[in-house]
Order: sequence, then structure tokens, then C-alpha cells
Amino acid sequence: MNTFGRNFRITTFGESHGKAVGAVVDGCPAGISLEEKDIQELLDRRRPGTSPLTSPRKEADRVEILSGVFEGKTTGTPIAMLVRNENTKSEDYESLREVFRPGHADVTYQEKYGIRDHRGGGRSSGRETVGRVAAGALALKYLRDHGIVIAGRIVSVHGKTGPKEIEQEILAAKEAGDSVGGIVEVVATGVPAGLGDPVFGKLDALIAGALMGIGAVKGVEIGDGFAVAAMFGSGNNDPMTKDGFASNHAGGILGGISSGQKIVVRIAVKPTPSIAKPQQTRDIHGNEVEIRVGGRHDPCIVPRIVPVAEAMLGLVLADCLLEQEKYR
Amino acid sequence: MNTFGRNFRITTFGESHGKAVGAVVDGCPAGISLEEKDIQELLDRRRPGTSPLTSPRKEADRVEILSGVFEGKTTGTPIAMLVRNENTKSEDYESLREVFRPGHADVTYQEKYGIRDHRGGGRSSGRETVGRVAAGALALKYLRDHGIVIAGRIVSVHGKTGPKEIEQEILAAKEAGDSVGGIVEVVATGVPAGLGDPVFGKLDALIAGALMGIGAVKGVEIGDGFAVAAMFGSGNNDPMTKDGFASNHAGGILGGISSGQKIVVRIAVKPTPSIAKPQQTRDIHGNEVEIRVGGRHDPCIVPRIVPVAEAMLGLVLADCLLEQEKYR
Amino acid sequence: MNTFGRNFRITTFGESHGKAVGAVVDGCPAGISLEEKDIQELLDRRRPGTSPLTSPRKEADRVEILSGVFEGKTTGTPIAMLVRNENTKSEDYESLREVFRPGHADVTYQEKYGIRDHRGGGRSSGRETVGRVAAGALALKYLRDHGIVIAGRIVSVHGKTGPKEIEQEILAAKEAGDSVGGIVEVVATGVPAGLGDPVFGKLDALIAGALMGIGAVKGVEIGDGFAVAAMFGSGNNDPMTKDGFASNHAGGILGGISSGQKIVVRIAVKPTPSIAKPQQTRDIHGNEVEIRVGGRHDPCIVPRIVPVAEAMLGLVLADCLLEQEKYR
Amino acid sequence: MNTFGRNFRITTFGESHGKAVGAVVDGCPAGISLEEKDIQELLDRRRPGTSPLTSPRKEADRVEILSGVFEGKTTGTPIAMLVRNENTKSEDYESLREVFRPGHADVTYQEKYGIRDHRGGGRSSGRETVGRVAAGALALKYLRDHGIVIAGRIVSVHGKTGPKEIEQEILAAKEAGDSVGGIVEVVATGVPAGLGDPVFGKLDALIAGALMGIGAVKGVEIGDGFAVAAMFGSGNNDPMTKDGFASNHAGGILGGISSGQKIVVRIAVKPTPSIAKPQQTRDIHGNEVEIRVGGRHDPCIVPRIVPVAEAMLGLVLADCLLEQEKYR
Repeated sequence: MNTFGRNFRITTFGESHGKAVGAVVDGCPAGISLEEKDIQELLDRRRPGTSPLTSPRKEADRVEILSGVFEGKTTGTPIAMLVRNENTKSEDYESLREVFRPGHADVTYQEKYGIRDHRGGGRSSGRETVGRVAAGALALKYLRDHGIVIAGRIVSVHGKTGPKEIEQEILAAKEAGDSVGGIVEVVATGVPAGLGDPVFGKLDALIAGALMGIGAVKGVEIGDGFAVAAMFGSGNNDPMTKDGFASNHAGGILGGISSGQKIVVRIAVKPTPSIAKPQQTRDIHGNEVEIRVGGRHDPCIVPRIVPVAEAMLGLVLADCLLEQEKYR
Repeated sequence: MNTFGRNFRITTFGESHGKAVGAVVDGCPAGISLEEKDIQELLDRRRPGTSPLTSPRKEADRVEILSGVFEGKTTGTPIAMLVRNENTKSEDYESLREVFRPGHADVTYQEKYGIRDHRGGGRSSGRETVGRVAAGALALKYLRDHGIVIAGRIVSVHGKTGPKEIEQEILAAKEAGDSVGGIVEVVATGVPAGLGDPVFGKLDALIAGALMGIGAVKGVEIGDGFAVAAMFGSGNNDPMTKDGFASNHAGGILGGISSGQKIVVRIAVKPTPSIAKPQQTRDIHGNEVEIRVGGRHDPCIVPRIVPVAEAMLGLVLADCLLEQEKYR
Repeated sequence: MNTFGRNFRITTFGESHGKAVGAVVDGCPAGISLEEKDIQELLDRRRPGTSPLTSPRKEADRVEILSGVFEGKTTGTPIAMLVRNENTKSEDYESLREVFRPGHADVTYQEKYGIRDHRGGGRSSGRETVGRVAAGALALKYLRDHGIVIAGRIVSVHGKTGPKEIEQEILAAKEAGDSVGGIVEVVATGVPAGLGDPVFGKLDALIAGALMGIGAVKGVEIGDGFAVAAMFGSGNNDPMTKDGFASNHAGGILGGISSGQKIVVRIAVKPTPSIAKPQQTRDIHGNEVEIRVGGRHDPCIVPRIVPVAEAMLGLVLADCLLEQEKYR
Repeated sequence: MNTFGRNFRITTFGESHGKAVGAVVDGCPAGISLEEKDIQELLDRRRPGTSPLTSPRKEADRVEILSGVFEGKTTGTPIAMLVRNENTKSEDYESLREVFRPGHADVTYQEKYGIRDHRGGGRSSGRETVGRVAAGALALKYLRDHGIVIAGRIVSVHGKTGPKEIEQEILAAKEAGDSVGGIVEVVATGVPAGLGDPVFGKLDALIAGALMGIGAVKGVEIGDGFAVAAMFGSGNNDPMTKDGFASNHAGGILGGISSGQKIVVRIAVKPTPSIAKPQQTRDIHGNEVEIRVGGRHDPCIVPRIVPVAEAMLGLVLADCLLEQEKYR
């Protein structure tokens, strides 16, 4: 299932070391101004090679819009966006043809399909998110035209919260041939009340599905999230005044429908599974082997997940905004 | 959106104080033995009035199978299941016709639809889960026929983990006219490797969407969940031996596809928003009012969410099992 | 697949001789006035036993609305509608338990599912259309509120076009233990321009799928239909003036999108396959047998298909009208 | 809606005079041998410029596979296929920027979107079918691996049936600055019994929707089609013997499910709306104008629709074959 959304629908394609990655957006309204640079900006934010904290792999990641735009405006027809893969050192991965990297999808893809593109994880690579981010950039533009702004940030890495501490944790992990996880928060402001669709299209359900579907994410929470488990109802309910809500424990969603407050989502990101340290694993023949994952990897994927999380939240909200239009 | 699933599809209907609640299951394979008592058992587990810890509202909740079963076996055609509502004291709710209960969907339904059935929350009531549980019971039966067993349990309530402490917390909250939240864990054993469908039909994404879509759930995590944010990759990766995995930090899912290990999911449940304590709110005219929510409510919804969470996980796995059959 | 539609979605259930038939409508806008009699009227038009031309089977077919309506108005939540089966002489069908009736789905259901409810065709019976008609009646009401009116009529039966000739053909076929087919036309007026969604959601594609999916329908055509195959472009194109189109060869649809003209659809209905005349067939063991189909059957299903065709066209247009609202 | 199918899903994109057209196939099983020449062959059959009967527009239409294939085999991940547009004389269309061509989607796209790519019809052009044919070629390959073969043929053009007469009709129409329609038949052999999914996923319903969704198609019929309207049941039913069916009036489908016989479908194709003869129309300002459509057009689209119809029937059958696998 490589299609996401009911109204603002995206289909993504491409493998880490194939010819290209990209997305087709179907259902985007006509009349939106769109140029390649509108897409490029968010793509650049997910790009590696921009700091010592990320993978040194250099990817230009230039997006080309193939269809759906005429004289600078969307026409209501599908918008295909293409990013050619470059700088793909497939030979780095030859040693992984028959070995399963721990923490990766290598073993499960092999089980499911009986065949897999082992080069950099193929479709299961984080590179797959290029298509999501390209499509998400368009969703974010559409949302901004409606007054909705989405911003993500790093909450913590390996338990640390300050920027300087976070940088130290990442560099220390890199030095040790290891990796670290963290928490990302994404907030949407300007969301009108009424988005979300009971009972299986609840806004929080759609958000949870969208964000848990990003590789490496192992938890999603809305508003107070897991903290609610230790609260009283009298402390968790958000009182209402004539001017609106007096607090936002709910994270902007009540009964699966946006309340008009800020939408607040946090995700837990696991440490990058590719590490230089030796690990125990097996190959496709069932033999036990020791592995050290070479190649150019991020010691911490958290910073690069921020734009992906923004993109996915944007796609959900764009989809719900269109859904809501039907009933206006 | 009251339909869930791509292959094992359910559509639920009904309001808390309407004539009936129920579900139609479409896509269930033919030839499965099915009687009403197969459904009734799980329904009885979610029923209130069975202990001092739950709402005293008495609901017989007898399910009637209307279609799709012939001479004791499913025929591959839709299975409609109906539960008539009884013991619905609508007059309890007359005072709530124009007032929004804090922490409930009252205000968001009003914003979205401009009209709402205020009696017991109407469609946004926990009673809506009767349809899910009825359909889920069928999914769980189908899964058991394939060796997959799902079991939920209460992890904690209001931060306490022992059964006796949990009971005390709930009774204390009830006494105080308040309510408490908690954490539920659901585990699936016997799940074959290969379920789940990259990239937007990932098993963890589907599970997160399904469980976050249960009313009162504010967080979902898989395997080590939020704890991964403070871990090293070398500690989070599950090593592989020739006998399988040496640990299960991943919770049975790698790259969105089941690995053959136990699937482990936890959800955070908020305190029941209906409390006897006075709360500040407003009515549909914008006036500020104080509210004390009468009626018969659960001081803690956690125990009754366990069968609902089992049902939803069952629906996701049944759906993925059928999806997987396509490619065998 | 017992669900139809993307926005105005219906799920139907029930077998000919099971407990009940019905439908759940999901996605119907809130605020529409709705009583059971609004549904009953169209149901009564498809009911048998009302003239010597139709099956003498008496079905009261009283619809009960179970959910989704509050104080006389739809609330935006699912509307479940139930019709209990009565007067189901299952014993009439005992002789058909192991024999395949020619022209019926008996043999294909057996092949597909390995099990089937042989009583009156089970789910493959024309009785399944009760759910469609109930849901369709709601769609037609919604459309009328938007100025769209749908009306069907019999064009011909067994090649004859006059009402009196048609009656004679039907009675003659009945007398002979045989049956006859015919053509039905359905016209929608008041349809705004812009409905339909290229390229796979074209209005004509949706209509063709919806109407071909009615049992016994073997052909669908729009506007001039099959006659276009013998025309010149200069004769088939509809010229435009400043007051609109000068003709309507296209049947109200251009490029899959409604043009604002009348939508004109015709369907070919095959003769009822249940006939008293002896026919050659086989049983589930592979033996050749001769069959005379007893029971109470329509010698011509054409009159009773008219309301079903109206319902299906109504469902398509309601769905497209909601789809279109998204982009206003 | 630019996505088609539930299991073998395709998403197409691109406009007649944009940068490219193409398709993404999602849900294709892993392990199918696939090279670009497997796709090219069917594309070449729909290509214009190959005979005096078709448009002289030269299109190389070289397909590039961008993803989803690894070392010559499909991997179960999305297969993106791209065809760059060349030889697009956009200046031919400048005069049509503000004028609606009769019989085309110009006016309805303008009504629907308020904006349109007027060059060659943009997305509504027959060129859109390049994506369908590329995806369909893959479906046809998958089907052939399962013993299912699809073949289309021209039944008639402008009422004539012999190849020589057909050629004469087309050349005569071209000479006269006019165009002609015709009928195409597509037959699938080797189809197993059991494909198709009651009640809204009936095989004939899916086929009708798929084929009516091809531009210029105004009618679809299965088996005896419209002829059934003048038949007796005793003549239309297909008797069964122990060796199978004694006839195939049904066209291989009973109750929406394949019977194991040949599937026979016919479609009515309207005359190409682009003609050199003067026609009355209006422009976007409401003024009446006379138009002669220049550019390079097919005087008869029937021959080029044959591979498109094969592709669409192939897509439906591939989708149903996968659907059926779920329940094996």
C-alpha cells in the first residue's frame, strides 16, 4: 500500500539505490500556485550531508514536477514529482546481499516477498521519505493558504533536551560506532474546529497511523499523551470559557475531531539500526554471522525525521480539510 | 468514516441512546463456524454493570446475527450483527442538550455537524464500541483458526500496577467524584512473519491508527515504545541467531512487517471525562456554566477498554492476514 | 465488496431467505429531514405482488431506521436501515440444494465460496436490492434537495414498446412458462455541470459500473450509446450556442464530467432466468439433470428494475455531488 | 480519481503536452520477470503515426521503468513507469485557449476546475491512456503467467465490418474532414471460475466501469448484451452439461462471477470529436464562434482503442485474480 489519503492522495515510489524516487499527488485542488522551489525547500531540510550530525552521503535531490501544473498553477490533475537518485554507492552494500542487518526490514522483506533489493534497504530505506516530503511540501503549501502552519522540533535525544547536549550525545554515539534515539514534537496552529471524521477516520487515529508509519517511529502520543495514564479526570479535562478552552491537555482533538486549539503530537524515534559496532545476526542461509554495518549512516535520525513528520501531519490535515469541505 | 479495513472490512452504526448499535462485516472468508455465542463472549467482557468498578448501567447486549451465516457457517457474504439498546435513560441527559461536557466530543460534534444527539454522547459514546467488539470477536475467531491468539491486560491505573492497588485507585476516584486513567497492553502470539504492507500499510501504522481511534486513547507504542528515545542502537537492535531473535525490543515488527515474534502494543487511556465534580464549561449559546455530569459512569474506563483493544488489534491482524494471502 | 461509493457510501447485507436485508449509509450529510416513509415509497415500488405482471410473493418490506437520525434529521452519523424478511418459503427451494439453475449465480457462488445459501439464490437474489433501494431512496431525497430529479421508465420489453404490447408480451411469456427481457432508461435532470472526476472516477464510468452491477443487466449505454458506432463526428458532436448545447447526443457527460444537460442512461435487462420450462443443467456432483424452476417468479424483471436503476443512479450522483463539494 | 483497482492498483499522471505521462503500479506481486520491452510492445500498438488511418503525430513513446524491479524481477514494491512527451506542437493549440471544442471535455473541465491545460486537451486527451497501457501491459503479463490471454479486435466501423470496407470508411471520413465511430470486442480466455465479488465488485460491474472510463466509449455490453432485451429466458439461459456450458450467451459471467467460460465484452466508440469541418461552438466569454479543429487527429479512434481496451480488461482481471487469492 503505497497510497495515502482519501482526498489529498499521494502515491510514492522508488528505492534507495534505484533510478529515482518520487510521488504522485492526486486530489490536490486546482488553482494553487506551485513551482519546483516550493517543494525543494522541505526536501533540502531532510537532505543528509548538511552537518557533522548527519550522514555524509551527498544527495542533490532536485525535484522535477512532471505534470499537473499549467502556467504556474495546479490544474486539479495529478502532480507527479520526480527525484533522480545520484551518488548511490551500491558496492557498499554488496556484502549485505545475503545478510540481515539487525533492526532493519531486511529479514521481514525477505520473508514477505522472497526477493529484495538489498542495496541500502531498497524500498525500506529512509530514502523512501523523499516522495512523502515532496508531496507533503505541497500539502503544507495548501494548508498555509488556509492559515494552517505546521512546525516540528526536537524534544530530546537520548534523554537530553538542550541543543548543545543533544549535539554532544549524537557525536559521542558516532564516535562509539553506535547511534541514539529521541523524541520529536510537531504542532499545527490555525487548525479550524471540525476536522476529523468519526469513528474510524478520527483525526488522532489518522495522525497516529501516519506518524507511526514513518520508519524508526515506535510511539505516538497526542496532547498529554502517556502522561494521562497517571492523571485524574478533573485535571485532564480542559475547562471551557466563553473565550474558548482554558487549557489544552487534549492536544487539540476531542472525540477525534479538531477543537480549534493547537494540535500537539509527539513521536518516539528509535536509534538508527545501522551501527559500526559488531552485532550478531544471520544470513539468508540460516548461518550465524557477525556484522558491522559500513556505509554512510546517520548516528541519529531524529533531526532528519522532523521535516518528514511535518510532511505527514500536513498530508493528514490537508486530507481532512478537503473531507470537511464536502459537508460545508 | 465508519468503515474500517481493506479486506476484513467492518462498518459500524448506532448511537448510545438510539434504537440499536451494530456492525456489518464484509470480506470474512466463507466456511468459518459461527454462532451468536461466539460473539457474545467478548461483548459480555466489555459490558458494564458487572462490578463495582464499572458503570451500574445494565445492558443485556444480546447480539443477533442477521445475515451471512448459513447452517452454522459463514458464506462469504456480509455478516450483519445487531444489538438493541435497552435501559437507556434519555431523561438523564436532558440537562445536557445545550451544554458541552468538558473532555467530551460534545463541542466538536456541534462544530462539525451543527446538530448532535446529545443523549449520552450519541455516536461519540463508548457504546459505539459494541459494533467494533462484535466484529472483532469474529476476527479473533478467524485468527484463532490460524493459530493467532490476542490477549490484553491492564498494565497500570493512575500509576499503580498491582490489582489491589488498581482497585483502590478506582474506588477512591469514584468516591471523590473523579476518575482515573491507565495503560493497557495487548499482545498477539502466533503471528506469522510477513504481515504488513509497506509503506503506508505498515502493520505498526495500522495498529496505531486502529488503537488511537478508540475513544479516550491518547498514546500508542509498539515494543519498547517511548523508551527507545533514550536508548543506544546497540541496545535497541534485536540480534538474530539461527533459532530466531535473541530479544524483542521491536515488539514483533520490523520495517512495518511482522517478524514472527510476539506483537506487543501499549495504549494510554485518559481518565473518563464524565465526573461528578463541578467543572467550568459553556453552553451552545456561549454562556459560561458550571456542570456536574450525572448519569451512571465508569470512574475508570481502563478495564472495559481491554476487550475493545483486543478487538481492534484482531481486526487489523485479520485484515493483514487476508492481504498477505493475495501474495502467497 | 458490499460497500459502494466514496463519499455517500452504502454497505448492504442480507440474503433472500435469511432473517433480514438492509443497508448502512455512511457519509450522508447532517441536517436532512428523514422519516421511514421517505424510504418506504421507493421500496414499495420495487415490491413484488402488486400486479399480475410480477411475482405473487407478498413482501410487506417495512423499513426500520435504526440509527443516524435524531429528532427527524440526519446527524452525519451512519444511518442503518433494516427490512425483516417474511413470507420466505424456504421449502420451495429444498430441491435446489444440490442443483444449479441455468442463468443464475448458483454455480459460480459454489465455485467461488465452496458453500452457498441455496434458498432463493441467497445473496445473489434480486432481494439483495432492497438494501440498495433503501439507501438509494435517501440519496434521491438528498439530490431532490439540490434540485436533481431522477426518473426511470421502461423503453421496451421483448422488443415491444407500447404499454399494452409490453403487458401482452409479459403475460404470454408467463403463460408459456418462459420469461422476457427489456430495456430501461433512467434520466437525471437538474444535474449541475462539473460532476465526475477524471480519469477513473468519470461520471459515465461510475454510472456504468453501478448499473451493470444490478443483477440481470447485460449492457449500459449513455446518450446515443451504441448508435454512435455508426455515426459521423459531425453528427455526433453537440454544437454549443450562447444558450447552451444545441443537442444532447452525449447524454449529458463530456470527458467523464457532467455538462449541465440531462443525463440519459439505458440498460439492457436479460429475461428472468427462473422459468417453468424444462432446462438441462447439472448438480453439484456433476450429474446432468433436467430442471423446472418452481417457486414464485417474475416472468419479466424489467418493471421491478426501474426503481433499482433509479436508486443506483441516485447513489452515484449523490456521491459525485459530495465529491464536488470538496473543490468548491 | 487517478487511481484504479483494489489490489493491482495503478495511478496515472500526465497531460498531452506536459513534460511526461506515466503510471505507478502498486500491489503487483513480487518475482515477475519484467523488462522495458515487455511494456513497450503494447505501447507501440497504441502509438499513432503508424498508418494512414491514424494521426500523423509521431511519438516515440519510449517507456522507462524507474522503480520496483531488481535484477530483472519485480520486488513487490511500486513500479513507476515514465514516458516523456516529445513532438508536442503546443502552438497548434494556441487558438483553442479560449474556445471549447464540441464533443470534447474542454467545457466541462473549465466548469469543474476553473482552469485547464488547453493544449491538446491536457489531461482529457487520449494521450492519458499511455499510462493505462503501460500499467496494463504489466497486468497482461501477469495474467499470461496464469494462463489468461486477452485479445481485442475491431467489430465494425461506421456500421461496416470487413477490413477493406472499414479502411474505406475511415479514409472517406478523413477526406471529408469528418470522423467515424465503431465497435470493439475484447475477449479473455483462460479465466478461472470464481473471479468477481458480489455485490458491488461484480466482475461485469468492474469491467463496465473500466471500459466506459476510456474516453470516447459510450456503451458497454457483456455476452449477448443489448440483444438480451428481445430474447426469451429459455433462449438466453446457458444450459449446463457435465462437460460445462452448452452455450455462452452470458459472456462468461453469472451473478457477477466468472463461470470459467470466455469473457466477451463489446464497447461502442464514438467518432473522434476533433474534425476539420466547421462547427458551431462558444468561447469562455460566452461568445458564439465557428471552429475548425486543426492539428493532427485520427479520423477514427477505433483501431487505437483496441490496446487500451485490452489494457483495461487486463487491469480488472489482474485485480480480481489477486482478490480471489485472498480466499483460496
